[in-house]
Amino acid sequence: MKITAIHEAVAPISSDIRNAYIDFSKMNASVVAVVTDVKRDGKRVVGYGFNSNGRYAQSGLLRERFIPRIMGAASDALINDAGDNLDPHKIWACAMANEKPGGHGERSVAVGVLDMAVWDAVAKIEGKPLYRLLGERYRGGTVDDKVFVYAAGGYYYPGKNVQALQDEMKKYLDLGYSVVKIKIGGESLADDIKRIEAVIKIVGAGKNLAVDANGRFDLKTAIEYARALHPYDLFWYEEAGDPLDYALQAELANVYSGAMATGENLFSMQDARNLIRHGGMRAERDWLQFDCALSYGLVEYLRTLDMLKQNGWSPRRCVPHGGHQMSLNIAAGLGLGGNESYPDVFQPFGGFADGMPIENSYVGMPDVPGVGFEAKEKLYAVMRNLAA
Amino acid sequence: MKITAIHEAVAPISSDIRNAYIDFSKMNASVVAVVTDVKRDGKRVVGYGFNSNGRYAQSGLLRERFIPRIMGAASDALINDAGDNLDPHKIWACAMANEKPGGHGERSVAVGVLDMAVWDAVAKIEGKPLYRLLGERYRGGTVDDKVFVYAAGGYYYPGKNVQALQDEMKKYLDLGYSVVKIKIGGESLADDIKRIEAVIKIVGAGKNLAVDANGRFDLKTAIEYARALHPYDLFWYEEAGDPLDYALQAELANVYSGAMATGENLFSMQDARNLIRHGGMRAERDWLQFDCALSYGLVEYLRTLDMLKQNGWSPRRCVPHGGHQMSLNIAAGLGLGGNESYPDVFQPFGGFADGMPIENSYVGMPDVPGVGFEAKEKLYAVMRNLAA
Repeated sequence: MKITAIHEAVAPISSDIRNAYIDFSKMNASVVAVVTDVKRDGKRVVGYGFNSNGRYAQSGLLRERFIPRIMGAASDALINDAGDNLDPHKIWACAMANEKPGGHGERSVAVGVLDMAVWDAVAKIEGKPLYRLLGERYRGGTVDDKVFVYAAGGYYYPGKNVQALQDEMKKYLDLGYSVVKIKIGGESLADDIKRIEAVIKIVGAGKNLAVDANGRFDLKTAIEYARALHPYDLFWYEEAGDPLDYALQAELANVYSGAMATGENLFSMQDARNLIRHGGMRAERDWLQFDCALSYGLVEYLRTLDMLKQNGWSPRRCVPHGGHQMSLNIAAGLGLGGNESYPDVFQPFGGFADGMPIENSYVGMPDVPGVGFEAKEKLYAVMRNLAA
Repeated sequence: MKITAIHEAVAPISSDIRNAYIDFSKMNASVVAVVTDVKRDGKRVVGYGFNSNGRYAQSGLLRERFIPRIMGAASDALINDAGDNLDPHKIWACAMANEKPGGHGERSVAVGVLDMAVWDAVAKIEGKPLYRLLGERYRGGTVDDKVFVYAAGGYYYPGKNVQALQDEMKKYLDLGYSVVKIKIGGESLADDIKRIEAVIKIVGAGKNLAVDANGRFDLKTAIEYARALHPYDLFWYEEAGDPLDYALQAELANVYSGAMATGENLFSMQDARNLIRHGGMRAERDWLQFDCALSYGLVEYLRTLDMLKQNGWSPRRCVPHGGHQMSLNIAAGLGLGGNESYPDVFQPFGGFADGMPIENSYVGMPDVPGVGFEAKEKLYAVMRNLAA
């Protein structure tokens, strides 16, 4: 068997939302199709991928380096020993040939989107949902039938007031979420406290509300917020400082006994390992949000999970960033603690299978081969065109 | 005044060399020209830049994000308060608008090449060499008239033997270098020791020889090498382990009392700060090799130098990777400890002004406005075409 073509395109994923660091008015994403010569149900198997959100499309790197390396390799270098399916690990090694160590950004996104498409194809060739394949390969056949998801929203919109924020949160409760997340750090601490108190009125308790500063704070501000947030007993306090400022995170742990979360802007096992080594994160309490689609894909994420295990961390402490079906499959298949969800934004990329209900902040898995893109009509409409 | 156009192209920088991690047979680099409407000596001022070596061209990121952001900005957002020159800091902020924190790779190269071209233009508009401009702006007018440079070579070539390695080193001595560098880690420790002893015969003493493992070793191997290298009292032992494995570097410091060097694969102030905080590097003995062209340019490098100062490090401990004229200007202007030099490879990008002699491993600075590209004929021939 072989890969016959890899197509890529850029799709808008823009929105008028804003977090404490950037606005998303020009955000886009790469979509790729890995076309194989394998047929299932009379049709060739095509794997699809896209690169989550927040880091822009990677057309240049895909076209200049990563797609040519894979398409230039001998087929044997890309498939399993039995010769009947793609080997994601071999394809990864091929894509990363002659890349120097360190410097994990952008290319980690390009490789992540290709890796997603490869795993989609692998599971389709085996004729099963990806999460079941992952459970079989890496977890002795065990899978989770449903995954914890929380509704990430509460962005700063032009002109948005507290009432609109409460209405947004009510909608998430109506959709079946019990845990929600809002942005902080884009306004004053006093204004953010008003927003937090307004949302707690809707969701019932601080333990149902996570807050996200998107890396905006210096140490002094991070600690001011920590002291102000502490009485609310929040679900978590996310990315207080620069994602690479492990010392800040460790200082924060000294003054904040509530749960902390971070990791969405760490794009390799090595960066994740530095957070674990130097960031003061607490394995019984805190949350890790590495997003495979931005971070060299599942092949690298498996290395990260191994590293976590060696350091005494359970995969249940991982709740990936991105709100996409790839991380949802990893969560169900490998036993993560949950997954982000964007009910309102980043469409058609955010969200899960059409018609799959959220109940008590848990979502089930569709019974379709692969990642499940075909069970999400508007997303599949974008993807299908690529391999037409 | 304003920027009227930014052009970019890809130039081959390939070679049949190999280090312990990658081969360079498909290596290339971006070259950019920032065209202004300012005239000097009857010609419009054009600033040029290129992205050092080791990380490939960045056409995609330049075309998709960074050039459009700069060209789409109001001119006032890019020039100084007097309105008579570009402002590299403002241009940097414009280029990095709506980029999330963390993930420092690839885009750091794209921004680095633009930043180099901007500083070249700024110095040309002021009619002086960049190193003099930097001395005036940041060092009270002091500059160094000459800069320590060492000859980086000793790569693994197909079929290359110890005799050829010695011949290469003799050539460097004949050129005026007294300190040279060779690669290690691409063969066995025993073979590398043979190479080291053969080179010491040529350069006279271990203190004239640096060795570079290019991030290849795990902790055990790094320590085995450290013990074997220690008796030779080498100039430095470079990048033993993964560039992000600060804990490995710190462990190495416990067993290696000779000088260590690293940093060429750390591409932001934040990553550099983590090396200083967590890597066990010793301010009186070790060397830092951050390369501005790969790391968001001089605007970011100034932040890194500030961070170093806050942590008790002198700029004299910095000897940048890359062997290019931009870092040479920074070294002379801001008082770094020296600069890498590639007499043999990465042409026409490597090396300094034509005809400028190397004496006792020091090189002088040409008296031409800007970075000095016009004083390096074969490089300028590549650049000039871009703005023709």
